[in-house]
Amino acid sequence: MQDIDFSSFAALRRQISAGLPQPDQDAIARAQARQASLTKPAGSLGRLEELALFMAGWQGAERPEINAPQAIVFAGNHGVTAQGISPFPAEVTSLMVENFDRGGAAINQLCRAAGARLDVVALDLGNPTADITESCAMTEAETLRAMARGAAALDPDADLLLLGEMGIGNSTIAAALAAALLGGGGADWCGPGTGLDAAGVAHKARVVDSALERARGEAGTRPQPGLETLASLGGREQAAIAGAILAARMARVPVLLDGFICTAAALPLRAEAKGALDHCLAAHCSAEPGHRRALEAIGLRPLLSLEMRLGEGSGAALALPILRAALACHNGMASFAEAGIAGP
Amino acid sequence: MQDIDFSSFAALRRQISAGLPQPDQDAIARAQARQASLTKPAGSLGRLEELALFMAGWQGAERPEINAPQAIVFAGNHGVTAQGISPFPAEVTSLMVENFDRGGAAINQLCRAAGARLDVVALDLGNPTADITESCAMTEAETLRAMARGAAALDPDADLLLLGEMGIGNSTIAAALAAALLGGGGADWCGPGTGLDAAGVAHKARVVDSALERARGEAGTRPQPGLETLASLGGREQAAIAGAILAARMARVPVLLDGFICTAAALPLRAEAKGALDHCLAAHCSAEPGHRRALEAIGLRPLLSLEMRLGEGSGAALALPILRAALACHNGMASFAEAGIAGP
Repeated sequence: MQDIDFSSFAALRRQISAGLPQPDQDAIARAQARQASLTKPAGSLGRLEELALFMAGWQGAERPEINAPQAIVFAGNHGVTAQGISPFPAEVTSLMVENFDRGGAAINQLCRAAGARLDVVALDLGNPTADITESCAMTEAETLRAMARGAAALDPDADLLLLGEMGIGNSTIAAALAAALLGGGGADWCGPGTGLDAAGVAHKARVVDSALERARGEAGTRPQPGLETLASLGGREQAAIAGAILAARMARVPVLLDGFICTAAALPLRAEAKGALDHCLAAHCSAEPGHRRALEAIGLRPLLSLEMRLGEGSGAALALPILRAALACHNGMASFAEAGIAGP
Repeated sequence: MQDIDFSSFAALRRQISAGLPQPDQDAIARAQARQASLTKPAGSLGRLEELALFMAGWQGAERPEINAPQAIVFAGNHGVTAQGISPFPAEVTSLMVENFDRGGAAINQLCRAAGARLDVVALDLGNPTADITESCAMTEAETLRAMARGAAALDPDADLLLLGEMGIGNSTIAAALAAALLGGGGADWCGPGTGLDAAGVAHKARVVDSALERARGEAGTRPQPGLETLASLGGREQAAIAGAILAARMARVPVLLDGFICTAAALPLRAEAKGALDHCLAAHCSAEPGHRRALEAIGLRPLLSLEMRLGEGSGAALALPILRAALACHNGMASFAEAGIAGP
């Protein structure tokens, strides 16, 4: 895998502009030919067939495999919690990290059920990022450090990466990133998060609007690029997710994105290079209303839609068996010739 | 488990009317209390929470488990293939059964991936049912025999039943059953099946209309009840599916229904007793257009929607990991008290 230059935004941007790895079109063509030979009506496995070709392209293999899926949950704390935008206190972030470490959270059960390794990376929880209504969340150096930690967390042996997050207040951060990078204001992107009522959501939208105003004031007339927006309105777990997505791309490892917060964390990369998320799948569409809107805006079709809104990578882990099933069919089915069946 | 009386439609109808087993409300209440204690915002696991309560009710346990899921694929042949309603010849039914037995079909890979036992029951393939445009598909005795075979196929140790089917021509049979039991005509319920073009679908709709006309002529002015409709317009694998659903209900075993054909096969039971499918989940919504319409008509919300249209139980097998994940969270997560976290 190519090393990523996290020394400055300018260096990182140069590297991204120089070109990211692309899927192996030859492997896709061979996988497509294999699909056409299997004992089923053409196209009858629907999106499972798409998934097999997607994996073939990124793994560069006619018969792609998932042998070492890795889930990473990045946790961060946010100064914007001072604005009262979450029903949970900020301390819950570290308590949930302890819960992850003890195996008691949803993501632990889901990873065990799906056969994925789980890593939890707590990012400087004792030192929340700055309140985005008052100043940039992070300096350039802080942002790059968190991105580098995200990239370093990718297991060199992983053949699929599942991304998740934990951070009280981070659906506010996600709304701010989505508004800044996809357009609209707080009301377009804010939802109940962990359980706000309508008045709470309205307040959260005003907080996001005030952060957007502050950021626009600093940026002047031209719109801020992705990385600067990440520093201005994001958080450490968002930066780490972006870093991990980039590291996975360099290693041609496909990625399962989780919910709204994870998707929003990917937006700065897409703002830097339109195809930067081509190796990413949307595992699910969450019940947090901004998520569907964000997925539509960037043209990702979710695999699942089960009204979940937990984060932690829970949707990504739930989609892993779908991907495994797609490859099991692709790799294990008999051909028409083997089964002695003439085509239609 | 209570024995089912398959001696006549009248006897079977008496038994169904006498009352079917119901979910355990006390177990549901205890499972609900457990859900509320787990380390996640209330409701944030969305439909996974519903699934845990559903399983708790039918298994009568606060912590339901899936230890012995059984998939059964019923295969049958249909005289209506003489009307040219499928691009595949009828011989493919038995060739696909051989493919199942050799482990080469999609359902073999999906059951292996999901950890389900797979049984394949071929129903008198050398002796297709009568052409439904000309006469009743089956006599009462033939229908009951196929239902009894379906019921007998349920493993007494199974704690979840996945149902699927194989039968060239059976999306025409499904359309006829759906039209007769849910209303509408051939055009409302016919789709491409294994791959008809628009002219083929229009022809198939005319074939269904002609079967409906023949059946109505025989029934006279009053609408036929479910079991008589099954005999008139169904097939052996449809009857076997209905029998297996009933046997599962008697044993309080929850059922994952597959696609359009499987759902249509369940309709005769629902016509006999409105709540007869209360122990059934719709695993997925298939790309065959009649399926969404049928699910909406009977109020079942599919878990997955991945544009599949293969049958064989493929959608049911794909949904099994979702159910397993729901129970893994329900049974394995820590409570707020255990994690030392105060609620919101």
